[in-house]
Amino acid sequence: MNVKRYLPILEWAPAYGRDQATSDLVAAVIVTVMLIPQSLAYALLAGLPAQVGLYASILPLVIYAVFGTSRTLAVGPVAVASLMTATALSPIAEAGSSAYIAGAVLLAVMSGIMLTLMGVFRLGFLANFLSHPVISGFITASGLVIAASQLKHILGVQASGHNLIEIVHSIMGAVGNTNGYTLAIGVAAWAFLLLSRKHAKPFFKALGAKPRLAEILAKTAPILAVVATTLVAWVFSLDEKGVRLVGEVPSGLPAFTLPPLDTGLWSQLAVSALLISVVGFVESVSVGQTLAAKRRQRIDPDQELIGLGTANLGAGFSGGMPVTGGFSRSVVNFDAGAETPAAGAYTAVGIALATLFLTPAIAYLPQATLAATIIVAVTTLIDLPALGRTFRYSRTDFGAMLATIVLTLGHSVEAGIIAGVALSIGLFLYRTSRPHSAVVGRVPGTEHFRNVLRHDVELCPKVTFLRVDESLYFANARFLEETVMDLVSEERKLTDLVLVCPAVNLIDASALESLEAINERLHDAGVRLHLSEVKGPVMDRLKGTELLEHLSGRIFLSTYDAWQALTDKADPEPEISRVG
Amino acid sequence: MNVKRYLPILEWAPAYGRDQATSDLVAAVIVTVMLIPQSLAYALLAGLPAQVGLYASILPLVIYAVFGTSRTLAVGPVAVASLMTATALSPIAEAGSSAYIAGAVLLAVMSGIMLTLMGVFRLGFLANFLSHPVISGFITASGLVIAASQLKHILGVQASGHNLIEIVHSIMGAVGNTNGYTLAIGVAAWAFLLLSRKHAKPFFKALGAKPRLAEILAKTAPILAVVATTLVAWVFSLDEKGVRLVGEVPSGLPAFTLPPLDTGLWSQLAVSALLISVVGFVESVSVGQTLAAKRRQRIDPDQELIGLGTANLGAGFSGGMPVTGGFSRSVVNFDAGAETPAAGAYTAVGIALATLFLTPAIAYLPQATLAATIIVAVTTLIDLPALGRTFRYSRTDFGAMLATIVLTLGHSVEAGIIAGVALSIGLFLYRTSRPHSAVVGRVPGTEHFRNVLRHDVELCPKVTFLRVDESLYFANARFLEETVMDLVSEERKLTDLVLVCPAVNLIDASALESLEAINERLHDAGVRLHLSEVKGPVMDRLKGTELLEHLSGRIFLSTYDAWQALTDKADPEPEISRVG
Repeated sequence: MNVKRYLPILEWAPAYGRDQATSDLVAAVIVTVMLIPQSLAYALLAGLPAQVGLYASILPLVIYAVFGTSRTLAVGPVAVASLMTATALSPIAEAGSSAYIAGAVLLAVMSGIMLTLMGVFRLGFLANFLSHPVISGFITASGLVIAASQLKHILGVQASGHNLIEIVHSIMGAVGNTNGYTLAIGVAAWAFLLLSRKHAKPFFKALGAKPRLAEILAKTAPILAVVATTLVAWVFSLDEKGVRLVGEVPSGLPAFTLPPLDTGLWSQLAVSALLISVVGFVESVSVGQTLAAKRRQRIDPDQELIGLGTANLGAGFSGGMPVTGGFSRSVVNFDAGAETPAAGAYTAVGIALATLFLTPAIAYLPQATLAATIIVAVTTLIDLPALGRTFRYSRTDFGAMLATIVLTLGHSVEAGIIAGVALSIGLFLYRTSRPHSAVVGRVPGTEHFRNVLRHDVELCPKVTFLRVDESLYFANARFLEETVMDLVSEERKLTDLVLVCPAVNLIDASALESLEAINERLHDAGVRLHLSEVKGPVMDRLKGTELLEHLSGRIFLSTYDAWQALTDKADPEPEISRVG
Repeated sequence: MNVKRYLPILEWAPAYGRDQATSDLVAAVIVTVMLIPQSLAYALLAGLPAQVGLYASILPLVIYAVFGTSRTLAVGPVAVASLMTATALSPIAEAGSSAYIAGAVLLAVMSGIMLTLMGVFRLGFLANFLSHPVISGFITASGLVIAASQLKHILGVQASGHNLIEIVHSIMGAVGNTNGYTLAIGVAAWAFLLLSRKHAKPFFKALGAKPRLAEILAKTAPILAVVATTLVAWVFSLDEKGVRLVGEVPSGLPAFTLPPLDTGLWSQLAVSALLISVVGFVESVSVGQTLAAKRRQRIDPDQELIGLGTANLGAGFSGGMPVTGGFSRSVVNFDAGAETPAAGAYTAVGIALATLFLTPAIAYLPQATLAATIIVAVTTLIDLPALGRTFRYSRTDFGAMLATIVLTLGHSVEAGIIAGVALSIGLFLYRTSRPHSAVVGRVPGTEHFRNVLRHDVELCPKVTFLRVDESLYFANARFLEETVMDLVSEERKLTDLVLVCPAVNLIDASALESLEAINERLHDAGVRLHLSEVKGPVMDRLKGTELLEHLSGRIFLSTYDAWQALTDKADPEPEISRVG
């Protein structure tokens, strides 16, 4: 067994030097500043106390540094997983209650177990079955739901709901109770964040900062908003004026936590945990691959499963919530110059220090500020032009995407993602059940054969050449049987059928039986079956099978050989098809 | 809308003549003689009163004659579906009780609705996902379970169980109570059927019958066994000696029956009904296609779903049990010369007459005779050599087959078929998630390119040619990303990558985004991406996409064009790979 496969830290730690440590430390400081408000905000979004977000940003980062293969992925709470956590837990208990917190711990542990097992059994390929349009539609719709759900904090009203319709309806009913102070803080924070997004970089550049430094300084806007609004809330005692603050946060490092051992709860949350795992994994891998490619590095998706799985186990056992690789944070980490996963471990130290010393200040942080942070962050997830692009490129993919969006917005995130996956797999099974094939004829005067529907080619009424353009397995074997038998029942003069197989990479046991059935049925119908251009590895496996033993016709190396042997070359004037 | 598609009877009925009617009538008489004992036996196997089997052999046959596309398929109760019916109903009610009979009616109706809807929505392709090895293993294992379950009737003991282990255990415990008379009748009937299977045809031939007539006469053995043992049981009043007889069967045609409208029961039986439907459909289509091919006819699988679906609706609403196309009966029907589905309708008349006039005699029929009929019939389903064949051809297919057999024998038919399908689809998803691809090099002095691992080819260290051998869609798009990025991270000198696409029939929206991501990542890594040999229809769709707009490299018509343009032709001595 290759230890390095399971412990990627062994790849980089032995050569870890002073220069790398400096780069990693700088990146860690910047990511820490960014992660403090994000971790608090995503805990809020998930309906959890603020400290749960901090807890999920300590141990998981250290563990990922040991087991993860991406050099720059920044792990922690993220928006979509937080929304999915809230959706999964709301039927279980009231948000913020101890049963609810225990549920979040359980989700992290289950998700950790699932991801780790998938990694050990190398099941990363299963994530492929979330097609791009489905995941893109899902994230756009989730972003819309998240943004809408945060409006209540900006307005300072009570509202609830798990889809856009419920949330909007609930907020409309409560908008009369808007708290002016809350609204002022929320809008101010929102405006500041939006403006700094657009103008902070040019501003720092104008002050003389180098482009990279200006870029990094611009990322400190959320922490500035947090500090400023916290001070305002503290100085003016805004909590007495009805502004909801984060409130008292227990100080100190997280304690060892065991998930509830209630089997009923485990089975109730199993599907949610699986969905959180798979969605998180797909996003992490795509971010990780994008960043790795920029430095010609690579990540191993199966080991990433183990990295994320153990990180989630760490999150669960330290009282946190489900974690995964976050897009914006990872990009900041990369841009700030992180060179190894040690940067993540240093970030963990930063968050641990915040948990030890900053919690008294966090108590005065207005929830409206966090809501503004979330709204600004998730708007980067919303990609509406992707709908148009997908619509223009493929109607079937667009259908799956639209169903995902409509169900996510109108029902729930879980219904949306399940429908998307089911539709993707359904469409996939449908497409693959019809192998590409074409009746081909000879390009006059050459040894080449082309589709009769697209080219002017020579045909022979007694011999049909059917080119099979895909591997044959059980999913499409029956369709081939039907195609062949249709050809035979249409073409009464037929005496020979040649299957031209240049693109057949595999014939599985089902397809082998189908070919045997085809051979036998053609024999009964007085038609001989031949094969041509069979690839070497396929031919090796066919040797010794009943198909070759009972084949009524022959095996030709080239289709032209078959043409010469089977068609009547003395035929003075071959029939020419001029279709298409 | 094409009426003929939904009413295949319009294809043959207008031209139906006297000659065809004669052929169909002869076949119908022979099939009726065969079907009477079979329908009684399969009702017994399903735990239902004997008349239910007769009812299922009247209306469904008439309906299939209208909606079915096979000219010769003989529809009715079959062994495997009867076993599955018993497995589905035993948790619901006691065998033979009125709730149990109502459950059988419901299974037929639900199966009818499912099959008809699948036909209307053209979902016949879903049946492809029962791979040949799985269905073959399933039928072999079911045959073993069925044969074992009938031993109790031969011995005249009480026994139960839904898998081989339970049944054998139960019979072992009861073997002490064997009834001598029952055993004598059972063994005699069994021996007679076995002997007639082997020797009846030569016997009738020796008497001067023509081969076809001898063949047909040999098929009357079961009815002879029924008549003889019924007479013996009646003359010697064997019921008073502990021999279990079929007992009183209500005389007369079936009445209109409504299935129970208990929604709990519907959802409880839904999975079973689906499995019975799909297994029955797969078997019917395979028999139908085999027979149709012999006469260069064709069947339409989607319309077959409608034919079988409406036949099952007919079975349910006339108090019957699930029906499908039976293998042995269809072959007899074909051999006896049936030319149109009218033969099935005539058979229905025969069974109706039997129901009207023969039921008093059936009361004296020993159950042991029916058990012997079943055992002899199902042994033809058991195909043990298929295990060896599959093992030799493909280990993965064999794994799915073995799991199906072990679970069917050791747990239940439903667990077996579900595991088989899940494994087949899982293996399929796994295989398709790894597209066949190969790095290719130039065959020296030619314009041909071949796999570097198999051939001595010319390479260029700055340009890699990657041939993609399959269509690209979401299932394998990510694997392509990984393959490409691995190549780039291994080959530091690389400046150009050419994707050679002669076998790519389709690029779906996910694969398009993967290619865009590959293009972007390669660009970040300082490598240009080119495409060559893109098929016409694929190229048409790519026009106007971001991929072509942002493609860092070019699109070459042929790979040799790319070779000429990208490699340094002035290079005095190209590097030659001599691998493999």
